[in-house]
Amino acid sequence: MSEIRFDIASLHAAYQSGIGVAEVIDTVLARIAAADDAGIFIHLATRAELLSQTEALGPFDPAAKPLWGIPFAVKDNIDVGGMPTTAACAEYAYTPDRDATVVARLKAAGALVVGKTNLDQFATGLVGVRTPWPIPRNAIDPKLVPGGSSSGSAVATARGIVSFALGTDTAGSGRIPAGLNNIVGLKPTVGALSTTGVVPACRTLDCVSVFALTVDDAYAVLGAASGFDPGDPYSRSVPIAPPASRAPVLTVGVPAGPDRKFFGDASMQAGFEAALAALKALGARLVEIPFGDFYATADLLYEGAWVAERYAAIRDFFEANEASLHPVTRKIIGGARNLSAADAFRGLYALQAYKARLAPVIASVDLFCVPTAPTHYTVDAVLADPIATNSRLGTYTNFVNLLDMCGIAVPAGTRDDGLPMSVTLLAAAGRDGLVAAVACDLHAASGLTLGATGWRQPGARPVGASAEDGTIELVVVGAHLSGMPLNGQLKEAGARFCRSARTAPAYKLYELAGQTPPKPGLVRVGSGGAAIEIEVWRLCADAFGRFVAAIPPPLGIGTIELDDGTSAKGFLAETAGLAAATDISAYGGWRSFVAKANGQGQQLESTPP
Amino acid sequence: MSEIRFDIASLHAAYQSGIGVAEVIDTVLARIAAADDAGIFIHLATRAELLSQTEALGPFDPAAKPLWGIPFAVKDNIDVGGMPTTAACAEYAYTPDRDATVVARLKAAGALVVGKTNLDQFATGLVGVRTPWPIPRNAIDPKLVPGGSSSGSAVATARGIVSFALGTDTAGSGRIPAGLNNIVGLKPTVGALSTTGVVPACRTLDCVSVFALTVDDAYAVLGAASGFDPGDPYSRSVPIAPPASRAPVLTVGVPAGPDRKFFGDASMQAGFEAALAALKALGARLVEIPFGDFYATADLLYEGAWVAERYAAIRDFFEANEASLHPVTRKIIGGARNLSAADAFRGLYALQAYKARLAPVIASVDLFCVPTAPTHYTVDAVLADPIATNSRLGTYTNFVNLLDMCGIAVPAGTRDDGLPMSVTLLAAAGRDGLVAAVACDLHAASGLTLGATGWRQPGARPVGASAEDGTIELVVVGAHLSGMPLNGQLKEAGARFCRSARTAPAYKLYELAGQTPPKPGLVRVGSGGAAIEIEVWRLCADAFGRFVAAIPPPLGIGTIELDDGTSAKGFLAETAGLAAATDISAYGGWRSFVAKANGQGQQLESTPP
Repeated sequence: MSEIRFDIASLHAAYQSGIGVAEVIDTVLARIAAADDAGIFIHLATRAELLSQTEALGPFDPAAKPLWGIPFAVKDNIDVGGMPTTAACAEYAYTPDRDATVVARLKAAGALVVGKTNLDQFATGLVGVRTPWPIPRNAIDPKLVPGGSSSGSAVATARGIVSFALGTDTAGSGRIPAGLNNIVGLKPTVGALSTTGVVPACRTLDCVSVFALTVDDAYAVLGAASGFDPGDPYSRSVPIAPPASRAPVLTVGVPAGPDRKFFGDASMQAGFEAALAALKALGARLVEIPFGDFYATADLLYEGAWVAERYAAIRDFFEANEASLHPVTRKIIGGARNLSAADAFRGLYALQAYKARLAPVIASVDLFCVPTAPTHYTVDAVLADPIATNSRLGTYTNFVNLLDMCGIAVPAGTRDDGLPMSVTLLAAAGRDGLVAAVACDLHAASGLTLGATGWRQPGARPVGASAEDGTIELVVVGAHLSGMPLNGQLKEAGARFCRSARTAPAYKLYELAGQTPPKPGLVRVGSGGAAIEIEVWRLCADAFGRFVAAIPPPLGIGTIELDDGTSAKGFLAETAGLAAATDISAYGGWRSFVAKANGQGQQLESTPP
Repeated sequence: MSEIRFDIASLHAAYQSGIGVAEVIDTVLARIAAADDAGIFIHLATRAELLSQTEALGPFDPAAKPLWGIPFAVKDNIDVGGMPTTAACAEYAYTPDRDATVVARLKAAGALVVGKTNLDQFATGLVGVRTPWPIPRNAIDPKLVPGGSSSGSAVATARGIVSFALGTDTAGSGRIPAGLNNIVGLKPTVGALSTTGVVPACRTLDCVSVFALTVDDAYAVLGAASGFDPGDPYSRSVPIAPPASRAPVLTVGVPAGPDRKFFGDASMQAGFEAALAALKALGARLVEIPFGDFYATADLLYEGAWVAERYAAIRDFFEANEASLHPVTRKIIGGARNLSAADAFRGLYALQAYKARLAPVIASVDLFCVPTAPTHYTVDAVLADPIATNSRLGTYTNFVNLLDMCGIAVPAGTRDDGLPMSVTLLAAAGRDGLVAAVACDLHAASGLTLGATGWRQPGARPVGASAEDGTIELVVVGAHLSGMPLNGQLKEAGARFCRSARTAPAYKLYELAGQTPPKPGLVRVGSGGAAIEIEVWRLCADAFGRFVAAIPPPLGIGTIELDDGTSAKGFLAETAGLAAATDISAYGGWRSFVAKANGQGQQLESTPP
């Protein structure tokens, strides 16, 4: 295999060092030939077509075009202008004039479409074998199914043929194939990626998804492809902020022990437990959650209502061309013909009931960690029992879009039998950035190489001080410090502790007169100031707004300079409120002052939560 | 008619002055007898049953029980424990043990259930004549239909038999009968009132609604009955704050001239124009909105998918007892039998497309004003053509729940033919308080008497200074004042101007050094302070939080005392930031200083937006 690594950081470094885009294209084509797998692509761009895509790129400029010269593949149920869309059904094929919105956005960001990839026909399946084209070979172990429905996209990525690939995910098609091929599968919040130009499976649930070698790459692709699309009625505005440093303590829900399902696969069970241990080592607090309602929700997906969406999506074609469908696909989708509208609503009511029951459960943790798949199946096993094996693969995926959650399947280790171990991190809609941050750390902790390439993970993402999506840092100085009387107000507001720190040496701290509970006031001074010990907390804008609105005089919120040169919003006092106050700056902080005032030699409580 | 007025304020005043609850109960019974209308109630409590309900009331205490001793009626598709629920179909009847959640909450607040009211069978209809019981007589003009489906509840309220009544509203059943009987019909945000214990019509759309003589009464009932119900999967947390003073300029969307439909009823057209003139006189800015997409959305309600919900709600009963249904109801609901699940999803997709197209339209105004009904129909006209007349009555109501809007039908005047003129104010989900505030003002401006009672409206609601739902006041001092360079930041944050005012005489105003654009700093001083001109704006907590987080030093947000003795959050400066600043307190405010600095004798811009 060529030396050029295709994770985006490495490939951009290669461009920076002078490699030409034609050389990268030739590497793509050489890797396709080396893979020797006629099942990966349904349609490939020619070398000339690939070169012609590069004409609009201009000079290498990853700031202007964050995916400059990055090759990618597109699942063949997503339109690329000028290439046929088949949905893995030759009789269904059409050649669109226009790119799907996501493809157009990725091209505009500089990415190059290599071709259209194989899939479980009409994206119905999690196995990757329900296709009239050859079955793509699992990149890690050819005896195993590649996973589906986005089989070709996952294998192309795992083999390093492309840097990333688009999939779709209704039941788990963006996660299962990632888990089976040792790569990252990002399934964003429903509506974050436009489905304009995508062949529908279940229109109320469909997501475009991203396969990549690293979490950073998947998230960068999400950032480039996302954005509200007024042409897609299911589009939503989902802010995709840079994956941020995460809070030091995360609460992670995991299926309660008795509810874990591995169908007898002890290697997967052990692998999952090892992954949970890795999460704990990263600072997560694990909470066991009964999973019965999640499984019951998952069962809805193939019990009536939502199968009718698959039928509705292709009704006219199905009725005119029934014999042309893959036999398993035909059986599943045809089952919806006789469902009544009343049946559909009964399904919707059942889902709403589970949603209502699970909403407080989902809100009770920061995120969830589940196995991506409960077990691995061989191609032979799936062909022998196509429906039941497929259904089991969806154990931990089928409920996710129904419950409006986002998730990332991330390689977490190697099982004791050498097969890949993947877990999926899940969270409520809109928390894509949090999931990415934790997935990134977990992937780094695994030390795994990427896909089937043998490439090491690129350098760890710098842990920035930048905000999580829209949250705001708040410097607290006195009664709101950890363990102090008003700290509960912060916690009630959903604030999270970030760090202890000190102000720049430019402040005076006063004990205010007549306050219950006792409170200090921090004031910036022109000279003679001290560095004061503070804590930085973080809370969402709404809670911050309410918090600020409730602060009584003479306290208020201004900008506080810290001793590391950064600044943040935090408590300041009005000078006019210091009439009877006592300068306690010499104590270096409110905690020390309180401890000494109480006759103690130590801090009241030294451990932040 | 007895002298006791049944609007809540008047009835509570009567209780306060010593009238007994038994006397009120006897008044209720006397008014039922005087109405001489066997169509209003399907089931009535006996005098003894009513008296027994009063045993738990305790002494008159409207603070503890805001509906103490208030008689109300319940539409007969809502359960009252121990009374039969018929949904206007005798064969369907059952007697529940438990109250519907809303009824239980109203009883807990002190209200007394008088009986169960007639309706269009299974709440299917807007006319009030689709019932095997006698048709309730319109309280204003017996030739007219009473409106439906909540016919009995509206007539009982309009006749002053009860202070308020519960209805339900899927297509408009909580608004049309209010409009036809000169009363208020409040249809809250879907999910604000629990539907536990309510016979479903369309479960995804059903609302419990409130009929009352005044907007304040309807809103007070909403406040007492609302609250998240974990037992109702469609329940939502919708904050019901006191109806607040509204912003001085409201943008009100109205159907564009060519899109107004009155089906030849010139009196209704003239009445609607008079109502719009009244809204303008209240300070509203009217914006004509093309209404084609709203009408197309409305058409969905009886075209497939949602009719299947009505069938799904009573499928087993319908199949076993088809002959027992009212012929019109049977025809409508039976039409859903042959709809497929794929048809249902096609309807849902069509709705989602309209929702997406209309979301920016709905967000472009504060609220909408439409006629409640486009025309009035006589009972004879409806019986002669039951489907078409019903459909026309829903012109301005059918789209509302589909688009997740809330609304209040409010009497706005008397048409030139003497019949009632009602308009409905509509807004996006969650804006119930804003709608109530404007409806209250519009009703007061009409000077109408209440229902068919001849009672004058009680004294105008005190216009409080209290916050709209969760918004926060912000005092701006300098560059954020109206017309100043940073005022756009406030508007971008969705802030609304409240008032101009002055601080308490305890502040100094400084021109800060080296600021672009120029900015002042306000500082509280122990003595020698001046009263400084400021503006008060108001914005939601989230926007307030983001706004505060973006304020650069030496400015911050603290508490500012105003010269009327109130205080609010606003801009203060750190004393340490005043090193090179100039005391400009003598100008009395930043606007005066800027004007004089620019060599002008007047303010730059004197009119707030």
